[in-house]
Formats: sequence, C-alpha cells, structure tokens
Amino acid sequence: METTMILPFSQLPFCPPKPCRSSKASPFRSWKQRNSRPTRFNCQKMYVPGFGEASPEAKAAKNLHNFFNYIAVKIVSAQLQSYNPEAYKDLMEFLERHSLNDGDKFCADLMRESARHQSLALRILEVRSAYCKNDFEWDNLKRLVFKGVNEANTKLMRDYVSETTRVESEK
Amino acid sequence: METTMILPFSQLPFCPPKPCRSSKASPFRSWKQRNSRPTRFNCQKMYVPGFGEASPEAKAAKNLHNFFNYIAVKIVSAQLQSYNPEAYKDLMEFLERHSLNDGDKFCADLMRESARHQSLALRILEVRSAYCKNDFEWDNLKRLVFKGVNEANTKLMRDYVSETTRVESEK
Repeated sequence: METTMILPFSQLPFCPPKPCRSSKASPFRSWKQRNSRPTRFNCQKMYVPGFGEASPEAKAAKNLHNFFNYIAVKIVSAQLQSYNPEAYKDLMEFLERHSLNDGDKFCADLMRESARHQSLALRILEVRSAYCKNDFEWDNLKRLVFKGVNEANTKLMRDYVSETTRVESEK
Repeated sequence: METTMILPFSQLPFCPPKPCRSSKASPFRSWKQRNSRPTRFNCQKMYVPGFGEASPEAKAAKNLHNFFNYIAVKIVSAQLQSYNPEAYKDLMEFLERHSLNDGDKFCADLMRESARHQSLALRILEVRSAYCKNDFEWDNLKRLVFKGVNEANTKLMRDYVSETTRVESEK
C-alpha cells in the first residue's frame, strides 16, 4: 500500500519531466549517475498547490513556532509556580487576557506590560529557543508521524471493510 | 542568549537530580562515563506540564498528521483537475460540506459517500503516506523552525529596545 495506486508522475501534466540528456553526451556515466541529478530528483516530488511562494515546510514551521511558544509558557509557568508565586500570578493574569495563538504577539505584548512582565517575556524567549534546540525530540516526531499515518490508514480501511462485509452478510 | 537566563535545572524542585552513585563503587570509570547514564540525561530536560500521558512530540505529530491529510487533498485535487474533471467536481463538492480539521474523519466520511468517492479516499490515504515519507523535507522543517525562533527572538528584543530608546530620548 505504498505508492502503487498513485498515478505515475510522468503521466501528470503539471510536472513535465526534464528532457534526458542523450547518453552519447556522457557514454561512460552509469544509469545511477545519470539519474541522480538534483533537477530530476526535485521534479519527481508531488506538486502541492495553494502555498504561493511559501512551502508546506514553512507553513508547518510557523505552526511549530507558535507551539514552542506555548510550550515555553507552560514550562516557565510551572517553574514559577513553585519558587516565585508573585511572578506566576502575573503570568496567569496576563494569560487570561491574551491569546497564545500568535506567540510573537503574545511575547511583544508581555514585554510592554511592565518591567516585571518584561523579564518574564525574555525568559519565555530563552526557553522556547532552548526547548526547540535541545529538548524537543525531532526524530521522535518524525517516527510518531509515520507510525500515526500508517496506523490510521490501516484502521480506516479495516473499519470500512468490516462495516461493508457486515452489511453484505446481513442482506 | 542561549540558556544563560534559565534557572539551573538542579535548582528546580520538579526535577530532582538522581543521587550520584559513590565514586567508590566504580573508581576506574571516567567522569564522562559516570555522567552519561540515560537516567541523568532525561532528567536534564525541562519539565513540560499539561500533556498528561502524551508528550509535546505526540501532540505535534497529531497536528502534522492532519496537515499531511490537508496536503494530500490539495495534491489529489490538483492532479484530478487536469485529467479527471468529474472526480475533481466530486471532491470539491464534498470539501464544501466537510471540514478538513480532522483528517481521519474526513477520509472515513469520504469512503462512505459513494463508490467513486471511495477510490478518492483511498488515493488520499496513499498520497498522505507517500508525501510524509518521501516528499516532506523534515530537515528543512527543523532548520526553518530554528531560524524562525532565532530571528523572531532577535526582532522582538530589537523592536522593544528601539521603542524604549526612542521614548527615553523624547523625554
């Protein structure tokens, strides 16, 4: 169930294959060498419309950016709760009035609230940088996504088959 | 501006350091060997509350799962638009009535709509699996997130400093 059902890319009109150079031009290069040019490789990717000049990676990075800001706020608030109740209260009150959906706007507003809030904001900036670089398990994320997609695909097909088989046998 | 402002982890009450074994127990092990046990390494991560038994990685993977489903729908609709206008129309009409927020629910509903829609759903399952495994640039995602966090942190601090400097000089 990997890519067998997908239309071969050469048949798709939106990704015209680069014309192959004549093998006469370099008769001694192996098949692998001839076919491993970056231009060919890029062209074999599926075309994803609707991202304009950005890319799916940039879109996902933007979402993760806000997610790491959310995580940093969680981390800092948990740290403050135990050793600095006053700063914790400041942060909680601020959180009630400001959304975390846009992480950068949240930090910009927090910085301008008061001197005490400013140091909280600087700390959140530090933590989000340290968290994404040192603590977040990128390989684990990739593994979990692959596993999730595989399992969900199997489950969706199994559920559908068992459902339709039941309906057939009840007829 | 890396981790200098973060409280040393040993001072934080929620992550008690594992008691070090007496060096007498293994006097010939180097410092590096004694300190490279996985238990110590795990403990040096920042504590992230609020994820219950899940993890930030699992949460991010779930979001990416739905994102890849969205991408797969975009890819399939672009492919159909040019060579199968009828199937394209089916998909567009279905999209108007169903949300893409929950990718698995979308596919489950699409499968049960009609036999024609069923093959569309199977194709979306194929494409989302192939896309996340072969086409999505995971290393690029990581690079873009690091770059985005660094640049946003610098910009937030620079904007704040230039703003407050201007206010000071206007006084």
